[in-house]
Amino acid sequence: MADLDLTDPRIFPVWSETTVRYADLDPNNHVNNGAIGAYFEDGRVRLRTQILDQSDGSTLAGFAIVKTTIEYRRALGFPATVRIGSTVARIGSSSYTLGQSVFLGEQCIATAEIVTVRINPDTGQPTALEPHVRCALERVAPLALDN
Amino acid sequence: MADLDLTDPRIFPVWSETTVRYADLDPNNHVNNGAIGAYFEDGRVRLRTQILDQSDGSTLAGFAIVKTTIEYRRALGFPATVRIGSTVARIGSSSYTLGQSVFLGEQCIATAEIVTVRINPDTGQPTALEPHVRCALERVAPLALDN
Amino acid sequence: MADLDLTDPRIFPVWSETTVRYADLDPNNHVNNGAIGAYFEDGRVRLRTQILDQSDGSTLAGFAIVKTTIEYRRALGFPATVRIGSTVARIGSSSYTLGQSVFLGEQCIATAEIVTVRINPDTGQPTALEPHVRCALERVAPLALDN
Amino acid sequence: MADLDLTDPRIFPVWSETTVRYADLDPNNHVNNGAIGAYFEDGRVRLRTQILDQSDGSTLAGFAIVKTTIEYRRALGFPATVRIGSTVARIGSSSYTLGQSVFLGEQCIATAEIVTVRINPDTGQPTALEPHVRCALERVAPLALDN
Repeated sequence: MADLDLTDPRIFPVWSETTVRYADLDPNNHVNNGAIGAYFEDGRVRLRTQILDQSDGSTLAGFAIVKTTIEYRRALGFPATVRIGSTVARIGSSSYTLGQSVFLGEQCIATAEIVTVRINPDTGQPTALEPHVRCALERVAPLALDN
Repeated sequence: MADLDLTDPRIFPVWSETTVRYADLDPNNHVNNGAIGAYFEDGRVRLRTQILDQSDGSTLAGFAIVKTTIEYRRALGFPATVRIGSTVARIGSSSYTLGQSVFLGEQCIATAEIVTVRINPDTGQPTALEPHVRCALERVAPLALDN
Repeated sequence: MADLDLTDPRIFPVWSETTVRYADLDPNNHVNNGAIGAYFEDGRVRLRTQILDQSDGSTLAGFAIVKTTIEYRRALGFPATVRIGSTVARIGSSSYTLGQSVFLGEQCIATAEIVTVRINPDTGQPTALEPHVRCALERVAPLALDN
Repeated sequence: MADLDLTDPRIFPVWSETTVRYADLDPNNHVNNGAIGAYFEDGRVRLRTQILDQSDGSTLAGFAIVKTTIEYRRALGFPATVRIGSTVARIGSSSYTLGQSVFLGEQCIATAEIVTVRINPDTGQPTALEPHVRCALERVAPLALDN
């Protein structure tokens, strides 16, 4: 993902939108990191829904998030409405990585890389991505996967 | 407030809007009561901002919420965008009561009555609402206060 | 429930304990109302678990909270560990009311009354409490139900 | 920090404890990632308090978290009480990195690396760590900094 610039809104095929809440503020009057995490989660659910629309309903059962890396670039206040861009940034043999970004207007507030592993429900161990899952992931983000 | 029907959107002079988040869901896949409480809080901040715009900035310092009564009328799911209506429902000598409602389209999801007391910052005890505070509250909700 | 003093710790047969989190603080540096609501929820789950231990596992399926009334009595800070007392305060024909209280040491921080209705899963309408549910509820709180 | 094993509880000089809440559960009945983030935040506040006890009260004003990396190793349920270990893992010229871990008994649930930058309050730009800040950080975690 070295060449993928998560602060560039043009790379994201999937978008969602959420309103900042007063309850998101911490004692410093800034949106806290936990709320930023909830914005990213909304973007992932949106992306997952779009993938599911294009394949069978069980496509993404048996996946587990194993690692999140978030960079906080600007403080965010209340009130505000933010947009979350999401894409598939990398596809491995038994895992894939999402790239995401929260924007306030044109400003990038935070970026995230989310590693998700395919789990064999019987053994609880990582297992290979099935071909149709790989296809669904590739369809989401052709631009990102060019690099 | 016996005559004030909080399920009727026409009584609310102040409106805000918020998006339901995936993180608001509980293990039953319904929006949990805590999230509903955050929606109402957003509506109160919106109402307070509108009052402050019409009076001096310190108007609502020294107030404390002492009682909330919330009625849950319908289950709410994800994704959704809800609107929160807020009004001043009752003005007492040292307190006032807000009436609020969360709507999904035309459906009333939940209603709230919120009692807020004026606190003397020196003693920590309830004290009388100042005339200019009372005026600001009355300006917000003439319809509600007719009854 | 006129005679039931929710600020008196001696009335509660069921107790749980929770730690205040930094994330519970609002911009005023006090624990926000939403976090207080989560403490009460923990107490209800504890009470429900104790009831389920004494009857069949499906006892409390098909119930819905329809009304919560919370009184906030003192501000709460961080760090702190609070205790939540819960009891059955009233049993109606198709509903029951819990009485709850959050304590910091001997100080009562907030009290709650929670009305829960028995729902017929087929019709979605209120329905009578079954005799074994009524028994389970009565076993929880003999002291409270004396009045 | 290549040699620092965050799953080893012996490396952490600072510990805090928190109770899992029912509200932390997501629709899969597991503690969601946002709640795990709040546990780590509690550990950081605990560590900061211990540092402040050993230096002047303004030591940690003007810092901003710029990056968090969290690895999720095991699912966590409710009810539970977890312990959070925190240490200073790396000290740079204008930033430092905390290493943290959430444990359920002896099981490591999740680990975190948190990069915090010293901000010049006048310019909003990164600035060098003052000598007394560096000293305070070094005092927290001599074991970790050996490597």
